[in-house]
Amino acid sequence: MAFSERVSRLKSSLIREILAAAQRPEVMSFAGGLPAEAMLPKVEWAQMPAAMGQYGMSEGEPALREALAAEARALGVDCEASQVLIVSGSQQTLDLAAKLYIDKGTEILLEAPTYLAALQIFQLFGADCLTVPLQADGPGLGALRERLQQHKPAFAYLIPTFQNPSGVRYSEARRDAVAAMLDEFDVTLIEDEPYRELNFDGGKAQPIVSRLKKASWIYTGTVSKTLLPGLRVGYLIASPDLFPHLLRLKQSADLHTNRIGQWQALQWVGTEKFKGHLVELRDFYRVRRDAMQVALEQHFGDLADWHVPQGGLFFWLTLKQPLDTRTLLKPALEQNIAFMPGEPFFAEPDANPGYLRLNFSHIAPERLSGGLERLAAVVRQAQAAKVA
Amino acid sequence: MAFSERVSRLKSSLIREILAAAQRPEVMSFAGGLPAEAMLPKVEWAQMPAAMGQYGMSEGEPALREALAAEARALGVDCEASQVLIVSGSQQTLDLAAKLYIDKGTEILLEAPTYLAALQIFQLFGADCLTVPLQADGPGLGALRERLQQHKPAFAYLIPTFQNPSGVRYSEARRDAVAAMLDEFDVTLIEDEPYRELNFDGGKAQPIVSRLKKASWIYTGTVSKTLLPGLRVGYLIASPDLFPHLLRLKQSADLHTNRIGQWQALQWVGTEKFKGHLVELRDFYRVRRDAMQVALEQHFGDLADWHVPQGGLFFWLTLKQPLDTRTLLKPALEQNIAFMPGEPFFAEPDANPGYLRLNFSHIAPERLSGGLERLAAVVRQAQAAKVA
Repeated sequence: MAFSERVSRLKSSLIREILAAAQRPEVMSFAGGLPAEAMLPKVEWAQMPAAMGQYGMSEGEPALREALAAEARALGVDCEASQVLIVSGSQQTLDLAAKLYIDKGTEILLEAPTYLAALQIFQLFGADCLTVPLQADGPGLGALRERLQQHKPAFAYLIPTFQNPSGVRYSEARRDAVAAMLDEFDVTLIEDEPYRELNFDGGKAQPIVSRLKKASWIYTGTVSKTLLPGLRVGYLIASPDLFPHLLRLKQSADLHTNRIGQWQALQWVGTEKFKGHLVELRDFYRVRRDAMQVALEQHFGDLADWHVPQGGLFFWLTLKQPLDTRTLLKPALEQNIAFMPGEPFFAEPDANPGYLRLNFSHIAPERLSGGLERLAAVVRQAQAAKVA
Repeated sequence: MAFSERVSRLKSSLIREILAAAQRPEVMSFAGGLPAEAMLPKVEWAQMPAAMGQYGMSEGEPALREALAAEARALGVDCEASQVLIVSGSQQTLDLAAKLYIDKGTEILLEAPTYLAALQIFQLFGADCLTVPLQADGPGLGALRERLQQHKPAFAYLIPTFQNPSGVRYSEARRDAVAAMLDEFDVTLIEDEPYRELNFDGGKAQPIVSRLKKASWIYTGTVSKTLLPGLRVGYLIASPDLFPHLLRLKQSADLHTNRIGQWQALQWVGTEKFKGHLVELRDFYRVRRDAMQVALEQHFGDLADWHVPQGGLFFWLTLKQPLDTRTLLKPALEQNIAFMPGEPFFAEPDANPGYLRLNFSHIAPERLSGGLERLAAVVRQAQAAKVA
């Protein structure tokens, strides 16, 4: 069996296996990033034109590209519809970017921690991952400058708004500084923003790509966290020098994104109805975030430290006594609790023990306390065993 | 700008540019492989469960996997639902296969001619393409044996049923012989069957994968030619040794295929309603195929040779006086006619001048004659200019 060299780096996906285990109905899952079922909006299909059944353009539906460009301009991103490419969920942006940039040994720059599935696809293509530790308001600037002085990464992949997994939102000052540094060293920015609209406490977060003066960029988003993930509709907006390459890569990957989902997304993006839905969504998730905070203080106050996330879908816990949280997975599942160990979110998992990512969007608040109590007991037992 | 090495092989897609030009309403297009608008079935969405809006499994919807496995078993393919992966159109199968097998310099085996977009993605990943010329009833067996004796290709990619572009359907004897030879040399088969159901004149064509005794295999199909291409729903069925790798590659590419389209496909696959639709579709396209044959005899009888295709969507013309048919594209478009030059369907385009691929599904029969007359005039003019 002669597979490609990259297949030797094709790891079994922890996400997939946990989600599989977490699908047993008796399991309470803090693992995934699933929207709450109750907040999936009711959508109508009756008005969809029959033409949406025919082949479409690789770029995506023109009206949807216009609507997304208008949204991005409202955020301060200087762009035209011609720079918008509709993708099969924003995960596909990462696949296209990997194809565009990464050969075996290509250096790229990532946050530590960073999005697990991004790490997987970049490493699959053979990337060497440089990392910059995240602080409470963004990446450490000293470390960032040092990496850029000593290396020439093909791109920097950043999730500046309610980062997955850490929940960090870069401050305005940090955004300016990061943009200036990427311009100075002429490093392409890939800015991933699935969680931008899940903002519970207000505050500004203008995209970093809008602050660039020189560097190339790809900005990517999705309707998966705000509308319906099952549509598999995301988008990227790219600087004009990158767009033609990304378009050809999109075409060779799957010809074009499904038009049914694109049509549905167009019924929402930029509308008053969607704005109303987003207000409801924020209110709903804010209640769950607050309930999670109360339950965490009760059960994890002595076990871990964390910041209250101001948006997104996750709490990121730092255990006071670090241990390999992957070892907690089996005993937790035996208690019918699923969670996401922190190690796989790092390019060097073994060097970063002691973090847990806990989703708060999917579990009803009244069930939280019981679940976290059981998870805390699993942590305590593992720590006691380690000491003994 | 430091792109990956593979981007240097990222060609501008002729398909995309022609389809863009062919979208002008005044252009009569023989270029694409679009289903006739009139034959896109009316579909209902009212009964779709709200749960289809949530994230789904990377494997695809369980019921659809079951239905597709049952269809494949009815064709003689020994498989279970656990071997079925739902993909974002069968183009994605080619992307996943390229990732699974191809490093720079990996040898693969293709028909000559072969599907343009397959050639593009395999070459993007750096494949060295070995080719076997197609004859009227399949690949030349002497040439196939010679390639397999002298090389060890990672896989053979074949389109045995109403091949794109040639329209060739392998005979039963040729299918047996190819299967035996792939077994003998233990070469993986990727069998691509988008056109299987578009069978106008009856006759058997049991999949080659069902005849393998030893070699690994991927069988791929789609609902794009029989239901609605805009759904972007295809599938692959793989031998159990390959499935786990393909599943992980699918997950890293786009998490999962859109569930909306999967649900719609499930309303049709294997049903009496679908069988009835396929009968109508065959009747409709048979009339168009026959009309095309009449019009071709009238206008191209002295210019080209061809076989009447027994299925699929294309006539494949061999000019009696070969010339580079890419040079015909501009004068044809000036006459508001689009067609597909033959050269890009070959791994060595410049060594294979003188073929044209003409689609017959998309143009109303009463318009054919005028269009082919103008195209024939373009060919005559180019040949006269060449002689002069």
